[in-house]
Amino acid sequence: MEDKAQIQDAIKVQGEVVRKLKTEKASKEQIEEEVAKLLELKAQLGGDDGKHQFVLKTAKGTRDYNPKQMAIREKVFNIITSSFRRHGAETIDTPVFELKETLTGKYGEDSKLIYDLKDQGGELLSLRYDLTVPFARYLAMNKITNIKRYHIAKVYRRDNPAMTRGRYREFYQCDFDIAGQYDAMIPDAECLKIVHEILSQLDLGEFRIKVNDRRILDGMFAVCGVPDDKFRTICSTVDKLDKMPWEEVKKEMVGEKGLSEEAADQIGEYVSMQGGMDLAERLLQDQKMSQSKLACAGLSDIKLLFTYLQLFQVTDKVVFDLSLARGLDYYTGIIYEAVLTQARVAAGDAPNGGAAAEDSVSVGSVAGGGRYDGLVGMFDPKGRKVPCVGVSIGIERIFSIMEQKAEASAEKVRTTEVQVMVASAQKNLLEERLKLVTELWNADIKAEVLYKKNPKLLSQLQHCEESGIPLVAILGEQELKDGVVKLRDVATREEADVSRADLIQEIRRRTSRP
Amino acid sequence: MEDKAQIQDAIKVQGEVVRKLKTEKASKEQIEEEVAKLLELKAQLGGDDGKHQFVLKTAKGTRDYNPKQMAIREKVFNIITSSFRRHGAETIDTPVFELKETLTGKYGEDSKLIYDLKDQGGELLSLRYDLTVPFARYLAMNKITNIKRYHIAKVYRRDNPAMTRGRYREFYQCDFDIAGQYDAMIPDAECLKIVHEILSQLDLGEFRIKVNDRRILDGMFAVCGVPDDKFRTICSTVDKLDKMPWEEVKKEMVGEKGLSEEAADQIGEYVSMQGGMDLAERLLQDQKMSQSKLACAGLSDIKLLFTYLQLFQVTDKVVFDLSLARGLDYYTGIIYEAVLTQARVAAGDAPNGGAAAEDSVSVGSVAGGGRYDGLVGMFDPKGRKVPCVGVSIGIERIFSIMEQKAEASAEKVRTTEVQVMVASAQKNLLEERLKLVTELWNADIKAEVLYKKNPKLLSQLQHCEESGIPLVAILGEQELKDGVVKLRDVATREEADVSRADLIQEIRRRTSRP
Repeated sequence: MEDKAQIQDAIKVQGEVVRKLKTEKASKEQIEEEVAKLLELKAQLGGDDGKHQFVLKTAKGTRDYNPKQMAIREKVFNIITSSFRRHGAETIDTPVFELKETLTGKYGEDSKLIYDLKDQGGELLSLRYDLTVPFARYLAMNKITNIKRYHIAKVYRRDNPAMTRGRYREFYQCDFDIAGQYDAMIPDAECLKIVHEILSQLDLGEFRIKVNDRRILDGMFAVCGVPDDKFRTICSTVDKLDKMPWEEVKKEMVGEKGLSEEAADQIGEYVSMQGGMDLAERLLQDQKMSQSKLACAGLSDIKLLFTYLQLFQVTDKVVFDLSLARGLDYYTGIIYEAVLTQARVAAGDAPNGGAAAEDSVSVGSVAGGGRYDGLVGMFDPKGRKVPCVGVSIGIERIFSIMEQKAEASAEKVRTTEVQVMVASAQKNLLEERLKLVTELWNADIKAEVLYKKNPKLLSQLQHCEESGIPLVAILGEQELKDGVVKLRDVATREEADVSRADLIQEIRRRTSRP
Repeated sequence: MEDKAQIQDAIKVQGEVVRKLKTEKASKEQIEEEVAKLLELKAQLGGDDGKHQFVLKTAKGTRDYNPKQMAIREKVFNIITSSFRRHGAETIDTPVFELKETLTGKYGEDSKLIYDLKDQGGELLSLRYDLTVPFARYLAMNKITNIKRYHIAKVYRRDNPAMTRGRYREFYQCDFDIAGQYDAMIPDAECLKIVHEILSQLDLGEFRIKVNDRRILDGMFAVCGVPDDKFRTICSTVDKLDKMPWEEVKKEMVGEKGLSEEAADQIGEYVSMQGGMDLAERLLQDQKMSQSKLACAGLSDIKLLFTYLQLFQVTDKVVFDLSLARGLDYYTGIIYEAVLTQARVAAGDAPNGGAAAEDSVSVGSVAGGGRYDGLVGMFDPKGRKVPCVGVSIGIERIFSIMEQKAEASAEKVRTTEVQVMVASAQKNLLEERLKLVTELWNADIKAEVLYKKNPKLLSQLQHCEESGIPLVAILGEQELKDGVVKLRDVATREEADVSRADLIQEIRRRTSRP
């Protein structure tokens, strides 16, 4: 009983903590975390009825999708897969966990974010961190040297979740990759064309696709006097430029990473440059930069890339940006990242067609990728390389925006496709309702009945209103005698007798999309 | 170097083991296991070039899906989701892992098969074992009392995989459930209607749906003199009747579980009974059985169920079978299981329309489910119940059969939907090809180009043959001058000049499905 008293005290204290955070309007995550602690304490105490008390939540950084969210998710997936398929991609799937050693040494500093499975005897396993490494493992294992594939699946990172900004520990990636030995920059340009297609069709507002090349970065570091062994760490500092001002980035380079002030300033000059093919041409003439063969190779490829991007009609959104670095270890050539420059709710979508709703979702990068010519070779016993380039669409942020748009919109999101409800106003007609709904199902009509012997007509009609079912087929004694069904239009409330023989065709006619 | 010599010896020995198993035609799994050991030894040795050698495999009991398997998988999913949607189901999704305690105490003896995640700080997590428990958690957490939902996702069991028979450690479940307080047996009957629809449409050959009721089993155990505390364990012995003859089952009951011979024999008499509504009626009159109120409630519901099944036109496949037990703890009422009685490759599908190919896939249960009225209450702080009934389609076995059918069939499975390849017979036309393919993509035509500056016409045509692309749009100097494209039908090899202005419409016309 002493234990119990202690727990009760702890509950009081924790309760205060939660209340305080709420009055202080602390962040949602912080409050949720403290509430979880409170619930755990309560669970320890147990209920008065002796029942075990569960902490009713999903794991940290994860979420359920309710039917409305699923409807939006499927819409987004359809747009994305349509684009992948339009470009001739096949699809594959891999297991959610891999041998731990398959993931080892692929993600640099981020490896600490990998979820390991408990050693329960047998192999050591980890949850996949992305879809790229499993793809490379798949290619090496099956000795595939040419493939264009997409893969849509969840990946796992023990990151600090910021769920309101669409950052989760379990999240979807939609990957498109082209593997094979081809002529330079053609597949790379197609990846950017696909990003352009998808972001345009999702209608998320303005976006920009930044491109750079690992070889340009490395060449730039070399000519600026960065020691070889500091390329990686300086690169990851450059990667912070989209979140930090240059002053802070420079401070990190000089203070923390021991770079000379002069080298840092030279880098600072380069990474402020943005442009198109013209910038690549200018840098090829740049006295310093042109000293690096690596940088020149990268710059020539950027030029070639822009030639193809012009043919693909996507240069309006693509920027050559020397500050783009990207974290992952495995990139070897071109890299890119798409950012939304203005997450908006379209004016036309706002209720009453009024002014545009306020933007309250802050979003950044929604797609990224690049060339990784060495990764497959890491899995091949003989180190045989398969050049690859690909892109990953990060859809959680896209979902956030789409959900917000849906909420701001007057149009109701339907979560089922039911065409007709089989109903009755009279008692004792369950059997007749079941007979009719069977006829409809057998004719591939999407139909429902309420699971009650004698439901009220009102509750049957209400169900239609709530779930957007457009038609009701009403049965009564008289209709049965006459061999008809009263077909009611839920929106207009108009009713008409339709003979049983014509019913299926009439439902199809009324519910077919124009 | 001594270590190295030792490993080399071990590799020789292990190599012999593998060769021996192969000559002895050991099971595929056994060979794979020993090959894995061999590869691990080789990895320890390392390559001569000092590269780390990876064990190139997926985790035990898991597999990749290649593009052909994905095409089949999507076909199966389409049939299943169409049926779920025809019956008005919404869909939800839940995370792949749950708090460990969410899964605790739900699966009885099978709990040992749950995958736990490593404790890396923070919450203790487990991979989901099925979709039913997460569904119940979702209902309780969101205080939902009425929903009809489906959920298609992977679940995880540390079971002994028998992959050739479609048993994996990572596998899909396709669940359909109806939650809510309704009149008896109407939703239960609809679940069976859905199983009937799906198995008929998948065209997998003959099947049978066995039904029983937990209350009938418990009542039967009671009247046969099984002590209360042995219901569960005797129930799981009865569950083995589809794999073991009665003699062995009886031996387990009497020998291992200490049941009296007399009680076992009485159970034996009941569990040999199969029938329809008539059997339920007979058992309601049965002197022994009718003593159990529980059994009578179950039998009355079976009668009612069959009334509805008749209206749903599915009684041809449904059998009331007293030997059906099902393992999971959470069932409270009706239970059912669908089995394929003959896994066949349809005669018409065999190459040359000849005799039916031999069946070599052995399959058993492909769907199962039942009523679980207590599970949601286990998650509710106040124990509020939400009655539920549902069915889970086990599609890995279905995939196995479909894959075999596809292989036996003469028809080639396409893995992309590309309508047209943009090609050229002449050099230096890459830019023109990219311009044309962009036009096509922008008009939502599925199109490809080879990623080469100057590909041979032959390799472009070969790619079409291999991936089943029906049309080639060929560009040459002359065509460009004339403002036309030579449109070639890959199958007939017929070519025709089509003006650029008409090209999109002509491709659409030729590739639209009749």
